[in-house]
Amino acid sequence: MSPDLSWSSTAEPAHEPSNPKHGGFHVSTINHQLRLAARPAGLPKHTDWQLTEEPVPVPGDGQMLVAISHISLDPAMRGWMNAGASYIDPVEIGDVMRAGTVGEVVASEHPGFAVGEHVYGALGVQEYALSDGAGVLKVDPSLAPLPTFLGTLGMTGMTAYFGLLDTGRMKEGDTVVVSGAAGAVGSVVGQIAKIKGASRVVGIAGGQEKCSWLTGELGFDAAIDYKSQDVRLALREAAPQGIDVYFDNVGGEILDAALTRLARGARIVICGAISQYNATESVKGPANYLALLVTRSSMTGMVVFDYASQFAQAAGELAGWMREGRLISREDVVQGGVEAFPQTLLKLFEGENVGKLVLQIAAA
Amino acid sequence: MSPDLSWSSTAEPAHEPSNPKHGGFHVSTINHQLRLAARPAGLPKHTDWQLTEEPVPVPGDGQMLVAISHISLDPAMRGWMNAGASYIDPVEIGDVMRAGTVGEVVASEHPGFAVGEHVYGALGVQEYALSDGAGVLKVDPSLAPLPTFLGTLGMTGMTAYFGLLDTGRMKEGDTVVVSGAAGAVGSVVGQIAKIKGASRVVGIAGGQEKCSWLTGELGFDAAIDYKSQDVRLALREAAPQGIDVYFDNVGGEILDAALTRLARGARIVICGAISQYNATESVKGPANYLALLVTRSSMTGMVVFDYASQFAQAAGELAGWMREGRLISREDVVQGGVEAFPQTLLKLFEGENVGKLVLQIAAA
Repeated sequence: MSPDLSWSSTAEPAHEPSNPKHGGFHVSTINHQLRLAARPAGLPKHTDWQLTEEPVPVPGDGQMLVAISHISLDPAMRGWMNAGASYIDPVEIGDVMRAGTVGEVVASEHPGFAVGEHVYGALGVQEYALSDGAGVLKVDPSLAPLPTFLGTLGMTGMTAYFGLLDTGRMKEGDTVVVSGAAGAVGSVVGQIAKIKGASRVVGIAGGQEKCSWLTGELGFDAAIDYKSQDVRLALREAAPQGIDVYFDNVGGEILDAALTRLARGARIVICGAISQYNATESVKGPANYLALLVTRSSMTGMVVFDYASQFAQAAGELAGWMREGRLISREDVVQGGVEAFPQTLLKLFEGENVGKLVLQIAAA
Repeated sequence: MSPDLSWSSTAEPAHEPSNPKHGGFHVSTINHQLRLAARPAGLPKHTDWQLTEEPVPVPGDGQMLVAISHISLDPAMRGWMNAGASYIDPVEIGDVMRAGTVGEVVASEHPGFAVGEHVYGALGVQEYALSDGAGVLKVDPSLAPLPTFLGTLGMTGMTAYFGLLDTGRMKEGDTVVVSGAAGAVGSVVGQIAKIKGASRVVGIAGGQEKCSWLTGELGFDAAIDYKSQDVRLALREAAPQGIDVYFDNVGGEILDAALTRLARGARIVICGAISQYNATESVKGPANYLALLVTRSSMTGMVVFDYASQFAQAAGELAGWMREGRLISREDVVQGGVEAFPQTLLKLFEGENVGKLVLQIAAA
């Protein structure tokens, strides 16, 4: 964490140090938060963030207080920091940074949530959050460790599941190629593809270690290290029948390489473009897009929130595969307070994480 | 025509000047042909072509001889002149240039085709062609003028019909935008969209004259002149609800502009990219392709040949609309021998034609 970031108060100090509704759980009186201070140009810098502290709020009628234990870090966050309309409103300057979180209910005036229950919600980069329950889901920590509810059993697992099976219309016998394959979404995409009967699953990732993990523990048929290999040539060998489903998390040159190897009627799933999110010049469009015409293929964007009504069913299926040992969930858990968030986020763009990147915080 | 192009013979002179099977129809003894001499870089030059003459061939058993009257000129031809795999084999150096044609059977040893019948076939840029009937369709000149069978009732009409209704999945109430709107395919796309109940049809074309034709005779709701207007801004006004189907014939900057105005769940049909076919540097990829993600839209390539089994049904429907006066077919017919083909082809890339560009030849 940069020494330039220090805590500032956004409210009067809390004069009431504890609240009887907290039901015995130890609750600090201070809520540390990370707010967006400026819209970044390129990679977010420490001056784009502001650390604040304010009194832990007290739930009113119909509200609960959640003590956040784990915060999700996602490439899409970079987009939320930009101004302008997208599939979701931008985070406003001065707002607590938006993030998926899991935590425990420590006080409740909400009839549907009891103290001691664990929940998932987009509660932001802070230690405590008030919620009226909108968009908050209960999670069962006996089913999987809490960080898994931000990864394979959370939004990234949902993204992999619906992106591959619905948007990508993957069917038995397909050759599936996924970029960002050692990341949270990509690693699940490849494993679901194998479970669902893909004839060949190829992952593209950065570095030999990630590639070995893909073809070893995760059972991918082949892996391409984009840092040391010519992806276009490597795809010729790794996907000799051509690509039926290409699941793209990265954009840029790798998307262009995949376009040269499409089978007829291929489906490209546009899930993200991490190589382009910090571009300060214009995004690099896929110069080989006319391959879509030649091969009668499609390129389709997907946003996971559209599938909310089917999350429970998908999570059940994913949890079943995990129980059977057919689906491996890996989380890269960084320990630290909310002040560790900015530096941790950069790991994503530097390709340093393997699996789902999560920040584990502990209230002071 | 360039004076550098002169006829050369590819075969021994014909010693047998006429053939009894020609059934009384006057058939020249010489077949003039246009062959590919070199693979063009950028716009085709006269040195990329070779004029040849050879004796008019005599049909063998199961063959017929067609006297070609009209030759289709299509943007896709530029792609056929390049080396390398595409949706169709390239024209080889020295081959007669591939082209869709209509003509009359003037001699036949084929049980399915009689002398005097009119046919459509990809018989090439020449005056006469032998055929075994593969891919040759009979056309009825009482239904429409012969050039129409290269346009609205031919491959361009089929492209418009299946691209809009199948690939683009256009439905009633959609806002449909088409580029290259005054061209052979685009002008039919917009009219079919109106017939099928689009709430708004917007054409993008070059020049005020074309735009006036679109909003006047053809009944488009709006037209954008890309030569004098900012397409992105103009689309905001012309398609205020966003674009549901964008039918793209041009690629480049116009595709990028359309991407900024997609409605949620939009379908982009990639039919061609005339702005890029003569690019000597790499093709310009659509920099705004991440709009597909934001709007959950798709971009899909189509090739008309895939719909061959449904051509008859579609042609019947199109012919019906023409009879009812709801669909206007316009052909830009250039008169000349096969030697006029190279210069005529350039009209397409200079945006000079309105409607379907056809070369009408008359055997010497």
